[in-house]
Formats: sequence, structure tokens, C-alpha cells
Amino acid sequence: MGQYVPPIRDMQFVMHEMFNCESVFKAMPTMQDIDADTVNQILEEGGKFCSEVLQPINAVGDSEGCTLNKADHTLKTPTGFKEAYQQYVEAGWASLACDPHYGGQGLPVTVNQAFYEMMNSANQAWTMYPGLTHGAYDALHAHGTQELKDAYLPKLTSGEWTGTMCLTEPHCGTDLGMLRSKAEPQADGSYKITGAKIFISSGEHDMAENIIHLVLARLPDAPQGTKGISLFLVPKFIPNADGSIGARNPIFCGAIEHKMGIHGNSTCQMNLDGASGWMIGEPNRGLAAMFVMMNAARLGVGMQGLGLTEVAYQNAVVYAKDRIQSRALTGPKAPEKQADPIIVHPDVRKMLLTTRAYAEGGRMLAIWTALELDKELSHPDEAVRKVSADNVALATPIVKAFLTDNAWEATSHCMQVYGGHGYIAEWGMEQYVRDSRINMIYEGTNTIQSLDLLGRKVLGDGGAKLMRFGKLVRELCEAESGNEAMKEFIEPLADLGDKVSKLTMEIGGKAMANPDEVGAAAVDYLRVVGHFYFAYFFARAAKLALEKQDSGDKFYKAKLHTARFYFQKMLPETASHIRKARAGASSLMAMEEDLF
Amino acid sequence: MGQYVPPIRDMQFVMHEMFNCESVFKAMPTMQDIDADTVNQILEEGGKFCSEVLQPINAVGDSEGCTLNKADHTLKTPTGFKEAYQQYVEAGWASLACDPHYGGQGLPVTVNQAFYEMMNSANQAWTMYPGLTHGAYDALHAHGTQELKDAYLPKLTSGEWTGTMCLTEPHCGTDLGMLRSKAEPQADGSYKITGAKIFISSGEHDMAENIIHLVLARLPDAPQGTKGISLFLVPKFIPNADGSIGARNPIFCGAIEHKMGIHGNSTCQMNLDGASGWMIGEPNRGLAAMFVMMNAARLGVGMQGLGLTEVAYQNAVVYAKDRIQSRALTGPKAPEKQADPIIVHPDVRKMLLTTRAYAEGGRMLAIWTALELDKELSHPDEAVRKVSADNVALATPIVKAFLTDNAWEATSHCMQVYGGHGYIAEWGMEQYVRDSRINMIYEGTNTIQSLDLLGRKVLGDGGAKLMRFGKLVRELCEAESGNEAMKEFIEPLADLGDKVSKLTMEIGGKAMANPDEVGAAAVDYLRVVGHFYFAYFFARAAKLALEKQDSGDKFYKAKLHTARFYFQKMLPETASHIRKARAGASSLMAMEEDLF
Repeated sequence: MGQYVPPIRDMQFVMHEMFNCESVFKAMPTMQDIDADTVNQILEEGGKFCSEVLQPINAVGDSEGCTLNKADHTLKTPTGFKEAYQQYVEAGWASLACDPHYGGQGLPVTVNQAFYEMMNSANQAWTMYPGLTHGAYDALHAHGTQELKDAYLPKLTSGEWTGTMCLTEPHCGTDLGMLRSKAEPQADGSYKITGAKIFISSGEHDMAENIIHLVLARLPDAPQGTKGISLFLVPKFIPNADGSIGARNPIFCGAIEHKMGIHGNSTCQMNLDGASGWMIGEPNRGLAAMFVMMNAARLGVGMQGLGLTEVAYQNAVVYAKDRIQSRALTGPKAPEKQADPIIVHPDVRKMLLTTRAYAEGGRMLAIWTALELDKELSHPDEAVRKVSADNVALATPIVKAFLTDNAWEATSHCMQVYGGHGYIAEWGMEQYVRDSRINMIYEGTNTIQSLDLLGRKVLGDGGAKLMRFGKLVRELCEAESGNEAMKEFIEPLADLGDKVSKLTMEIGGKAMANPDEVGAAAVDYLRVVGHFYFAYFFARAAKLALEKQDSGDKFYKAKLHTARFYFQKMLPETASHIRKARAGASSLMAMEEDLF
Repeated sequence: MGQYVPPIRDMQFVMHEMFNCESVFKAMPTMQDIDADTVNQILEEGGKFCSEVLQPINAVGDSEGCTLNKADHTLKTPTGFKEAYQQYVEAGWASLACDPHYGGQGLPVTVNQAFYEMMNSANQAWTMYPGLTHGAYDALHAHGTQELKDAYLPKLTSGEWTGTMCLTEPHCGTDLGMLRSKAEPQADGSYKITGAKIFISSGEHDMAENIIHLVLARLPDAPQGTKGISLFLVPKFIPNADGSIGARNPIFCGAIEHKMGIHGNSTCQMNLDGASGWMIGEPNRGLAAMFVMMNAARLGVGMQGLGLTEVAYQNAVVYAKDRIQSRALTGPKAPEKQADPIIVHPDVRKMLLTTRAYAEGGRMLAIWTALELDKELSHPDEAVRKVSADNVALATPIVKAFLTDNAWEATSHCMQVYGGHGYIAEWGMEQYVRDSRINMIYEGTNTIQSLDLLGRKVLGDGGAKLMRFGKLVRELCEAESGNEAMKEFIEPLADLGDKVSKLTMEIGGKAMANPDEVGAAAVDYLRVVGHFYFAYFFARAAKLALEKQDSGDKFYKAKLHTARFYFQKMLPETASHIRKARAGASSLMAMEEDLF
């Protein structure tokens, strides 16, 4: 069974020492009084909730799963899930980053993201219930009428009600333009919505008294394709005027999916049979409103990958120090025992350090992105908001895809550290592997993320956003050019920067002649740029660690080791991806379909 | 639910067109009359058994799993498993490659391996029941007394009885030197064996009337470590003199493991409580006898990886041609439909072609190795046997580790092709992913394989075995040096050959000063050498395909496309691994244990 200790020290390093988040918050009128102590206290308390309440019900969630009673459409979540959720709501965790106007605490997204990393480490399946609620909150907050906001946001903020995103239908996932659910306008301004949705996470459950579904559907006169989709709020129970629970709306879970992992989350087929709904945003502009949810959700999925990477690492390290098996290649290291702990073996260390570097690198990238998001949302200076919005836009597909690909690789490495025990359910590691796999698929597959990055975010503005990040890198490289101790980090970083520029220009040129060149290169390109971010952040971390390595705090020594490992043993992955990206589309597209 | 069509055409290409196996068989006294027609007939009939009998019970095996009745120690396998096994025995499939002296058909290992690829595609969990039997058969055949052989080999040959390998104990897997099970000599020459074994595949079941366990245990006076381990035959039921089933031997399944995959196979904790056993081989030389099983088993695990790669490919292709979603980046390809089939998208093709190339490359390597094994076992010329033994020794860890790592990557790619549906059990793809994961762990983890390759097989003889393979590569490169059409294959192959030589010498040099350099480089090294084999075989396949591409048989066009894809988009993986292998041990070993 897994264990989990919140990585507070590393979070503090990233937030306070690397990015000085206190000073960022101070620049924003709504966050003036959020100092380092406040942040630390939330991390401590939040971490305690994760390790003491959520982590102990992670395995039972996996083994029990959810149970649908088709007779009365109720769905039972695993033992302990409901009670944990009550604690979550009562402690006020749901409202951390919500608008004070609706009862929220108005804390930075950054703090909330760190909390989500911990929740996902402890229990991804459970965390998806409040996680989806945030998405619904965001879309409603940004695009809802004041009436809808007043009726629903307070309850979503408190967590008394949860939310979902109802997008996918059996015949359409990536290509939402094909969706068929229908919305018939009613005399009272509401709509009757009919259709079948699938893969609806947290679609039905017994943890909260109401569920607020955000549903994509078409108006009767809607144009075909993505420009004919509208967004509707469809509550499970229609609230009465006083906010109490009213009539049951005909939106029912028809079946729950049997999945590879995240068994504790109810992934539902939802049938709408003339369910009452209210429009959010403009008619036929539902996708735009939905993208507010989607972008937040993509960052959230990145936190799922990061959370699983961290918890897998922690457990594998404990196992590797405890399990004795064979002697070190260089001779016995624990001669008093029958064999050495397996952490003496180079490849065991390689798997552990790879996972560790993915966790630390992911944390730096995720927190940096969250700070940029805070600035985008709350900074008083419009120019700052604009730059931050660009930074977030560029980083979002990387946070989503890079961190989740890394988590799949990392959890599998950690499983390998356990040998045969890794494959056995009771040890807990194989659940992390299975849970992590969905993160590469949902909220836009990682291929879609890579197309978003290369096609839209990079080539779409002639590389302007990427060059802005490149400027940060160049500034660091120039500032450290005379620092001999930093050479081992700065040289490969600068070299990769040159290669990213050249690669981007090369693909951009080829793409003008053949758009398939974007699709052929995008996945490899995303991994290269992901490493570019990681290398930049690890170089910054190494700089601090070099300065403080003799402070007596072993944390800095470990940071330096991890950074060195990253540069020597992981960054070389880019060599292959650059070659593959440059190899172009021809060998992919030449084969006729019937030859497959 | 999955589907499966045996890849007979590609098997025939590899066996007949590439390796001319008929002429290999003709050189061996025991296989004179095994011509291409015989081989083809077995592939056809065997393939039918796999697709019609084994494939339909693959999903039910996963969902039902095995059930242990602790009261009477019986174990129920999933619905249909027992009946399928009866058909298998009655049709004589068990005895294909067994010694005619004990009722076997004396067919080449090569043919049997091809059959195993198909069985594993259809149902890996089921195939492990007969698969383990082969291992027990091999060890008994090689090291058993004539009396034991006469008593047990006919029933193992026919498949009426199955076999197991009982090695692992809770505290020891890789490091068998620590094992504790005890064997007490008895006056009648038998032994009473007591101990606890775990992870025993096919350890108990209801598919055959008897189970023959091969058990590692220590004699009372045995030296510590690996030199004090003996091998014993421990039948579930002790046969009477007439071969009928006699007394139940106290070797019982205490529990079945709950695993990530291969649910249809009973992975058992086995308790021996003074069970009667008979020694196989010499006292304290049990590991040597066991390694006969182990080497065969490692090739067998490679076939598991290959089988899953092939079946995942087939299903993903069907899905990718059927599923319509979005338009091609270059404009509509199926304008009559609402969207294009997803096979138009470059990255979908990349995932499919990667899997296809892993399957085709794996098949060439596996069949080549099997032919070398046939020569090692049956060739009349001792010099030929010696060379083939070296070839098999070098290739075995690559077949095991490279093919199973590839299968993990490939099944995951194929799952990604399905999008969200890939994560849902009913589509069948996620089972392949889960099943494939064990293959990287058991029969020696893939890290152990890489150490075996680099430490023992390559550096252990100063690179002699590797240079012998390198000579084959050089001969091909020289023969094709004037062939312009082959340039795209020969140049990167020759280049990789040079790099492998240099890398090997560099690591060899560093390893003399620090043995950890072997452990630090081994996993990356294995992938480089794995690609070296694949590149050689794909170049040979491309040569044939170039010659026959205008024959009207589209098979050759597809082969050429796949080879080109492999060289352009997959071989570049070696660039990273070479860099990582060269980066050495320091960044792995420098971090003190308490800093992890």
C-alpha cells in the first residue's frame, strides 16, 4: 500500500527561493496580504489533509470502484469518498482560489495548483470530483449571466455542489464539431436538452447534494460544425428560488465505464432526455466558453501527472532502500546484511533519479505557469497581463502533455524498481501506472496538445511567444557566462536554445509547403520544447543550489545532484527527438491506407 | 473486443524468403523432411487454433480471472480455458518441438516459436500454462535421470500434465542466492521439501490432471549463496508406477496474486510442507539446470512481447480506418463523410507504423534467433553448433528485453490511437497494455537482461560474439555498397555499426576502472544493440522488397514503406541512448543514499 509525504520543502524552494512568489502576489491588488507564511501554512494544512484523509482511501477506491443502481439512477462511490469530501468542504478547501464575491477565499491559483499536486499524489480519482467542479466554476464565472452566477457560484465555490464537463459523445471526442445533442428553446428562456454523452468524469455520485453539468449542445437552427455549438448549464436537481434542492432534472447516468484506472472516479454515460438547461455565453459560441474550462483543465491534468510522478518516486525510494538483493557491482555496501539494498545498483538509481527529476522539473514548470496565470488574471498592468497570458498559452500544452507523458514513463520506472512486486496490486505501484495513463488522453490527447503547441502557439504567431521565453533563457545564459561553476548547465541549455530555434524555423518553412509536416513533427517537437523549459528551470535551480550547497541544508546538495543528473542523463533525449522531427512527413504519409 | 488475424504472410516472408529455413532444416539429420509446405501448414492450422479458440476467451480471462477455493486447494481458471486446453492437447500442439523419443513431433524450435507468437497474440495469459510446461520439459530433458524422464516426459510432451518453475521467494527474486526452501534427503532417494514460493505462474489450475513443479531448494549441508541450490521435481500428484495419478503431494496454492494484468493466468503463492521431490541434475548445481529453463523462457517472453505488439497493431489499424474524426491537415480525404478516418493524421500513422515496425523487426529477430537455436541443438557439425550457440547467447537478452520494452511502448501507442476508448476495458486494448507490462519484469528484469548482454555476453568475451554479428552486418554493407537503391538503408546501418563498436570499446575501457560503468550504461546499450539487429534485418528485408516491389504483390510495397519509416523515424532513437550510455556512472552514483 502506498505512502505519501507532501513535498513541502521543494514547493517552498520553488515558490519562495526560485520565483519569490510573495513579491508577485504583492504586485496584485487582490493578493497584497498573501505572504510566504500564509502560503506555507496552506501547504502544511493542505498536505496534511492529502496524506491523512485522501491517501488512505486511494487503494480502496481502486479496488471497489463505483457502483450504479440502474433502478433509481443513484451511484455509490467507494468507501470513505463521501466522508472525505465532507471534510474537504467543511475545511473550506474547495473555495481556496475562488472569487470572494461568491464566498471564495481569493487565494492565488499558484497556491491552489500546489494543493492539487498534493491531492493528486494522494488520490487522483477522488481529486477529479472537486477538480471538475473548478472547471465548471471557471466557465460559469467567465461567461454566465449574473442570475446564473448568483444561483450557482456560491454552491460551487463552497463545494456543496460539484460540476462536470459534458462534451464527448460516442462518435465525437477530439472533433466536437460533429456533436449531436440538441437544445430546444422554451418559452421561459430555458432549453430542453436531449442527447447522449460519454466519458463524463464525476457525472453521477453520492458525494454532494447536487451536480451542475455544463453541456455542449446544438440549437435547432445552429450551423454545422464547431460554430453551431452552445453551452448550457444543466443541474441534476433544479434549485428552488431559495437555493434548496428542487425537481430532479432528466439527466441520468445510463452506465459507468470499466476503465484501466481511476476506478474511484465515476466515468459516466449520461443521457439527457429533455433536461432543462440554461445557456452560458452566446448562442453558437459554446466552444469559446468551454475553452475557459478546457485550459484550466489542461493545467489540472498536468498536476495529475506531476502528483503521480511524485508519489511514485517516494514509494520507489522507500522500497529501494529497504529491499536487499544482490551485491553492488563494486563490492558489498551493506556487508552486515545478506545482500545490499537495491538502491546501490546504477540502473535502479537511474530510474529513481529520472522520476525525481521529472517531479522537480514538473513542479518548477507548473508553479511558474501558475504564477503567470495569476498575473494574467489579477495583475493591474494590462501589458503584464498580456505577456503573462502569452506565457500561459505557450506553456499550457507542455504542462499537460509533457508532464503526463513523463508520469507514464516515471510510474513505469518506479514499478520496475519493485520487480515482480510492482505488478501486484497490494503494493500500490501498479495503480499509479494505470491511473496515470488516462492523463495522456483526456482534455485533448497529447497529440492534440502538440499540434496546439507547434501549429497554433508557435507557428501561429511566427514564434513570438517562444522567442519571449527564449529571451529569458538567453538572459540567464548571458548573466552566467562568466560563472565557471554554472558552465555544465549553461552550455547545454544555450546549445538546446539554438537547436530549438533552428528546428522551429525549419519546420515552419516546410509546413508552408505541406501542413502534414506540422503533424509529423509535433509530438517530437513538444518533447524538445518541454526539455527546453526543464533545462532552463534546472539551471536556475542549480544556481541557487550552488550558492547554498554549503549551508548545511542537505536539500541543496540533493538539488544539485538532481540537476546534474538531469543535464547528463535526461536532456540527451532531445537528440533523438530533434532528428525524428527533422525526418519529416514523407515516410509517414507515403504508405497507402490499404497497405496498413 | 479485440480481433486477430495470424500474420502468416509475414512469417512466411521471414522464414522462407529471408532466411530460407527449409535449407537450414535440410542440413539437420532430424529435420530432413520438414519442407516449406509442412511449415506453412502448421502456421495455418496453428493460426486457426489461435484466432478461433484462444482469442475469443482472452477478454473473459481478464475479467473473470482465477478463483482459489482455499478449503480444498482447487483453483478454477476462467470460463473456456480448460476446454481450450483440451483441444490444444488433443490436436497435438503441445508436442510440436518435443523429442520423438518421448512422443514429440521433433519439429524445429523455429516453427514452435512462430506458433507461440500467435498464441501470445491471441491470449498471453492462457499461453503461459503450456509455455511454462515447455520450460519444465527442457530442464528435465537436459538434466533429469532416465527414470524421471521416462516417468514424466511423455505426459509433459503430450500436455496431459503441465509444468511450473518455482524459483522466487518473498525475499528473493533476482538474487536467488538468498533462497531458503529446504530439501531433506529421504532413505528412498527422494527429498522432503519445505518452503514458500511466490509469483508461481500456472502454479495451480484445473486444466490438466497433474502439475509438475520444478523447485529450487537447499540441501541441509548446502553452502550459502547460489552454489548451494539444488533443483527438484515436485509433482502435484505423485504418479503411480503405471503412470496413473497417485497421492496428493503437500504442495498447495496458499493464495493467488492480484495483478495488473494476465489475470487469466494463476499466479500463485505455493507452500511446500514436506512435499516429496526428486533431484534434477547435481546437488548444489540446481541453478545451472534451471538456466536451461530460463534461457528458453527468456526467448518465450520475447515472443509474448512480439505477440502483443502484433495484435495491438492489428486492432489499432482497424480502429484508425473506421473512426472518423476531424479533417486531414491537407484538406478532406473522405469528403463524403462528416470527417476523415483518423488514419489520415500523421501522428496516428506514426504510432501505427512504429508498432508495425516493432512487430516486423521483432519477428525477424525472433525467427533468426530460433533458427540459430535449432542449429545449436540439432546441427551435425560441432563448429556450426558452437557459432549458433554464441549467436543465441548474444541475442537472448535482446529478444527478451528489447521486444518487451517495445511491446510496452507499442501497446501504449495503440491505446492512444483509440483516444478515450482505449482506456475502456470493453475495447480490449487496455488489456494488452496491462498484460504486456509483466514481460519487462519476469524471467529476469530487463535491467538484468541488459547486464547479461553488456557485462557477460559482450564484455565477457572481449566482444567476440558481437564482432561475429558485426561481421554479418559488414558483409551486407559491402555487398550492397554499389547498390544506389539500398543506400538509404546501408549508410545508417554501417554508421550505427561504427558507433556500436566505439561505444562498446569506450564502456569496456571505463568498466575496467569502475564496474558501475557497466550498470550505468547497460539499459541504454541494450536498446542501441537492439536497433543494430533491427536495422540489419530491415536492410535485408528492404533488399528483397526492392527486388520484388513490382511483382504485383502489395506485401513488398508495404515492407519497403515500413523499412523506410524504421530507418527515418525510429533508428534515430539510438542517438539519445548512445549519449546517455556515454554519460557514464558519476551522476548516478554521486548522490548519497539519504539524499534520495
